[in-house]
Amino acid sequence: MSELAARSRAVTVLNIAIVGAGKIATVHADSVRRNPGTRLTWVASPSLDAAERLAAREAKATQDAYEAISAPDVDAIIVSSITPTHVEYILAGVHAGKAVLCEKPVDLDLARAQDCLRQVEAAGGTVQIGFNRRFDPTIAEMHERVASGEIGPLEQLTIVSRDHQPPPLAYVPVSGGIFRDMTIHDLDLVRFFLGEIKSVYAVGQHVADSQVKELGDFDGAVVVLQAASGSVATIVNERHCSYGWDQRIEAFGPLGALRSGNQHRTSLTVSNATVNDAAERVLSTNSERYGAAFARELDAFAASVERGEPCSPGLRDGVAALELAERAAHLAHRNHDTNGGRSK
Amino acid sequence: MSELAARSRAVTVLNIAIVGAGKIATVHADSVRRNPGTRLTWVASPSLDAAERLAAREAKATQDAYEAISAPDVDAIIVSSITPTHVEYILAGVHAGKAVLCEKPVDLDLARAQDCLRQVEAAGGTVQIGFNRRFDPTIAEMHERVASGEIGPLEQLTIVSRDHQPPPLAYVPVSGGIFRDMTIHDLDLVRFFLGEIKSVYAVGQHVADSQVKELGDFDGAVVVLQAASGSVATIVNERHCSYGWDQRIEAFGPLGALRSGNQHRTSLTVSNATVNDAAERVLSTNSERYGAAFARELDAFAASVERGEPCSPGLRDGVAALELAERAAHLAHRNHDTNGGRSK
Amino acid sequence: MSELAARSRAVTVLNIAIVGAGKIATVHADSVRRNPGTRLTWVASPSLDAAERLAAREAKATQDAYEAISAPDVDAIIVSSITPTHVEYILAGVHAGKAVLCEKPVDLDLARAQDCLRQVEAAGGTVQIGFNRRFDPTIAEMHERVASGEIGPLEQLTIVSRDHQPPPLAYVPVSGGIFRDMTIHDLDLVRFFLGEIKSVYAVGQHVADSQVKELGDFDGAVVVLQAASGSVATIVNERHCSYGWDQRIEAFGPLGALRSGNQHRTSLTVSNATVNDAAERVLSTNSERYGAAFARELDAFAASVERGEPCSPGLRDGVAALELAERAAHLAHRNHDTNGGRSK
Amino acid sequence: MSELAARSRAVTVLNIAIVGAGKIATVHADSVRRNPGTRLTWVASPSLDAAERLAAREAKATQDAYEAISAPDVDAIIVSSITPTHVEYILAGVHAGKAVLCEKPVDLDLARAQDCLRQVEAAGGTVQIGFNRRFDPTIAEMHERVASGEIGPLEQLTIVSRDHQPPPLAYVPVSGGIFRDMTIHDLDLVRFFLGEIKSVYAVGQHVADSQVKELGDFDGAVVVLQAASGSVATIVNERHCSYGWDQRIEAFGPLGALRSGNQHRTSLTVSNATVNDAAERVLSTNSERYGAAFARELDAFAASVERGEPCSPGLRDGVAALELAERAAHLAHRNHDTNGGRSK
Repeated sequence: MSELAARSRAVTVLNIAIVGAGKIATVHADSVRRNPGTRLTWVASPSLDAAERLAAREAKATQDAYEAISAPDVDAIIVSSITPTHVEYILAGVHAGKAVLCEKPVDLDLARAQDCLRQVEAAGGTVQIGFNRRFDPTIAEMHERVASGEIGPLEQLTIVSRDHQPPPLAYVPVSGGIFRDMTIHDLDLVRFFLGEIKSVYAVGQHVADSQVKELGDFDGAVVVLQAASGSVATIVNERHCSYGWDQRIEAFGPLGALRSGNQHRTSLTVSNATVNDAAERVLSTNSERYGAAFARELDAFAASVERGEPCSPGLRDGVAALELAERAAHLAHRNHDTNGGRSK
Repeated sequence: MSELAARSRAVTVLNIAIVGAGKIATVHADSVRRNPGTRLTWVASPSLDAAERLAAREAKATQDAYEAISAPDVDAIIVSSITPTHVEYILAGVHAGKAVLCEKPVDLDLARAQDCLRQVEAAGGTVQIGFNRRFDPTIAEMHERVASGEIGPLEQLTIVSRDHQPPPLAYVPVSGGIFRDMTIHDLDLVRFFLGEIKSVYAVGQHVADSQVKELGDFDGAVVVLQAASGSVATIVNERHCSYGWDQRIEAFGPLGALRSGNQHRTSLTVSNATVNDAAERVLSTNSERYGAAFARELDAFAASVERGEPCSPGLRDGVAALELAERAAHLAHRNHDTNGGRSK
Repeated sequence: MSELAARSRAVTVLNIAIVGAGKIATVHADSVRRNPGTRLTWVASPSLDAAERLAAREAKATQDAYEAISAPDVDAIIVSSITPTHVEYILAGVHAGKAVLCEKPVDLDLARAQDCLRQVEAAGGTVQIGFNRRFDPTIAEMHERVASGEIGPLEQLTIVSRDHQPPPLAYVPVSGGIFRDMTIHDLDLVRFFLGEIKSVYAVGQHVADSQVKELGDFDGAVVVLQAASGSVATIVNERHCSYGWDQRIEAFGPLGALRSGNQHRTSLTVSNATVNDAAERVLSTNSERYGAAFARELDAFAASVERGEPCSPGLRDGVAALELAERAAHLAHRNHDTNGGRSK
Repeated sequence: MSELAARSRAVTVLNIAIVGAGKIATVHADSVRRNPGTRLTWVASPSLDAAERLAAREAKATQDAYEAISAPDVDAIIVSSITPTHVEYILAGVHAGKAVLCEKPVDLDLARAQDCLRQVEAAGGTVQIGFNRRFDPTIAEMHERVASGEIGPLEQLTIVSRDHQPPPLAYVPVSGGIFRDMTIHDLDLVRFFLGEIKSVYAVGQHVADSQVKELGDFDGAVVVLQAASGSVATIVNERHCSYGWDQRIEAFGPLGALRSGNQHRTSLTVSNATVNDAAERVLSTNSERYGAAFARELDAFAASVERGEPCSPGLRDGVAALELAERAAHLAHRNHDTNGGRSK
């Protein structure tokens, strides 16, 4: 369906305020603008300049998040501000009767996130957590086909997820650590495919001359999770990857395997005296690799709000993933200490 | 760059009228809407209803193409009406001082197309022909890398281009035949990569029980072209393809080969008792496979117009491709007759 | 089945003389030694040294091909001597009542090859021509599956066949030219898949600064053939290929396509800052790429001889491929001359 | 180099007795016969019939392993009898002054294997353990390139290893369990790539309605190992795989990744209305997938013996892998019990 046809069919339009004006906020703003069922009405950021740039001509800008959250021409808010502010904006949104789509993680402090969940549930609020990968066309298709029984009961889920470039060193102390910051996306996917988790194991690792080690975090990690059903999920994470943003998943069952492979800038391949059938650069930015996922995430959010249905993945999923991240972080650090801190 | 940032940087905006309201016109309308440097102001179609649907709220609709072409709030026109009208709308646009982006082919009658070229050149008009594949990110990258000398002088260009579904039988008599209608895209790519062509050979073929044969056309064809440089291009065409829209190109030179492979709906692959590493459906609609190409084609057109530079591929390229198509059609039919019409 | 089990089951053993002691003769000797149904008893070569090396301990060596051909402990001969001697050894073998497996081409002179065919048929001789690619496991499987109707009637066969390294310049004048020397393998495959050919087109090309051009031959060629059924085959040949011995075939029909891809030294792939999923070196020697084909060719030959059945591909196939090569060479040279010899 | 040339250059020949006459013994016999530096002189098996079939014409057969081991025309023995006999035949061979190539595992009882190691080291015996995958051309190349620093220090090794068909149920109780029987190959590869291991984690799993569960074993397992260097290896095992014998390895470091992919029966791929570019069946027998590995293993063994050098992987490697398997089995069972035996 062309954008036009879609636009003319959209009856109601969801007015949206974006809290935050950084990279992810910009991706969300693009999605909102392209979605015929949503309209950007407010952008809030401590930097008014940034808010105004993102608001452009059609939306209002403010430094005061609460102004945007409570504005009458706002039906829903997208929270993509810094992590420590998530809980307060979620609660402000819910108390103002607005639907909320909040970036992960809910908070770095598990108790605070759990408390937020209690308050939101008591208030009957509508909160979706930005685990956008569930909406990636390839992963969503894989999930549907696993659910349809195509490979039989899911026995082993193997996720390789490696960032292209490590985050700036200054970000590490405020990141919550690799498990809460990076692995959490994969932990959510494990829950998406396997349901509730019974046991967790984690090991962390450092690259040579790691400055991250001094900061008490890891550069890489492997996490193994087992579901009540006996299914086992394995996550292999690394903070750097020379060939791009490595994002692969394999679902294996008695009847077959489905694999979500890396995606490339073009479909060009090259053969020469050195290499054969070499593919192009792996997609390595959030908007390239998961642009469609962000757009479809917004679709799902808007549809749930319009129908008055609970959003999915909801705040409870955000807290559950955080619990797994917390548990994995604890185990990896304990393993590291037990091993006499000798891991490189 | 986000759409927003782009939009705020666009200084001048090109006002565009689309003549035609069919499938390709809709793809163009989407490109125009998404492009921060262009604005859709008019849509003209014999079906006012179709024109209005495509015009939506922001553009005006008319049954009279000339009204749109001559409107003061139109800087450029996109001609995607039926082929026999192309020449008159090109000339009307040029004489009204408007830049023109016209779908291929210029006309089914070579003499008429050549005459159009003479008139446009005499008038100093600005005309781009819609050979959008030149703008496909993969093909464009291949072209740049061949031009950069990565594989040495281009020796062999091999194009496999097969439609997913044959056109409706009723379209065949007005299509101009497979060479003018379908092969022409590949002939333009041959010219794009090899420059001027010295010799042409063509053979046509029919599938079993072909109704197309009764209509004097072919279901499939192979064309071999040699450039003055000695480089040889081969085109393999078929009107149907069970696995989707087969669109592959190989450029071969002494230092290596570059291949533009098919593109798939998702990056999912499946292995089971029957198949291994099987990829998903090949992209099979114009907007899926060449959506980015249409958008970049419009970018190039708008940029040329803004800078007052000649458009490329220009009307001369449209006529040159038509000359090759004409020659190929002639040879294929002669070969067919010589062989006693025995080809199946 | 293990070699051992096979060996103990073999009842009769075919005693074989190899005429020739070059590279292909060595590949044949290896096949004969590994095949439980064949035994190498004689090797003949103008170089007694070479013959003795190849004969090793188990076979006799001679400079006199006729001594080997007529020896009582020889049931069959493999002719892999230089091309001009093929016809006389075929005839000597046939007249001595021996089965003959002769390398391609039968002869560079078509009339001489046709005369040889007449004599062999008159004598009721048993001659197989070494078009070993028909026995390649991948190509043989492709042929079976096409024959089984898996892709429907074969519409288009597309062969890309490029040598890794050009032959020594000194070989060019005695090679018979690219069509009789190299393309002939592909022409035989076209006949294998499409049956009798109705029309042929060929164009030749030269690489920059080609010394081959001075010798009246081509460095590359494209040949298009159409069968009586209407099916079209395309052959793309080049004498050099930076990434190895490029050997690919695509069979296309209404129900699907089968592709025989290149084969690699190992199943290793590499991803790094420059390339993604790059495969290893393409197999580039006759014994690597077609080792299994040579072995299976010998199996088929031995089985035909044991059962007293005609060999396939037979001498008639050798002559038919030569006729196509002759025709293609004629057309390519005529096209080249018509174009004023301007092809680079 | 052709087999012939190799054969004529071999100066000394190693006389070999094979103890055992089953499937793997047959693969070894084929390697011995094809290797110009080795000769099969004896085969011993409790079934004289099986021994005679394997011995064929050139070797002697016996029911008494000790007769073969102590025979004067035996320089080395290959032990491929049932596991509980390995230790006694290793010791008999060593005490008779013969070099020994013994299949894995050394023994199911770790203490017995450790005792065997002490005795062999005291006696200065030469023992190689049949971890043939180290000699697979793809894995060996990967190892060399990792060692060369191509990807930088190895950070993560990820092995997916799944059997095509589960073993017969009757084999499970005598197999020693999945870790000692199947995972042990992967554990050896982990040691091959990562060196000594610091920590181990393992989890086991059962498929629905698993009879293996009743026998106290697992159908699948995931093992995570960390080396002293900090490098982490992950092994994903399953006893069944619908698409063949899944044998893949990925080595990842800061400069890139090397992947050993599955290998296929032919290089044929198919595209049709259902699948795209689907590959052929994955190689699924030991002789298909690892035939070259067995042959190269024998090469290495013969070369070490000829040069009087220690064999690698030696008995110590066999015991070390067994220690890891023991540890993994213990952990997997403890995890299973802790989880209340609820894993499916």
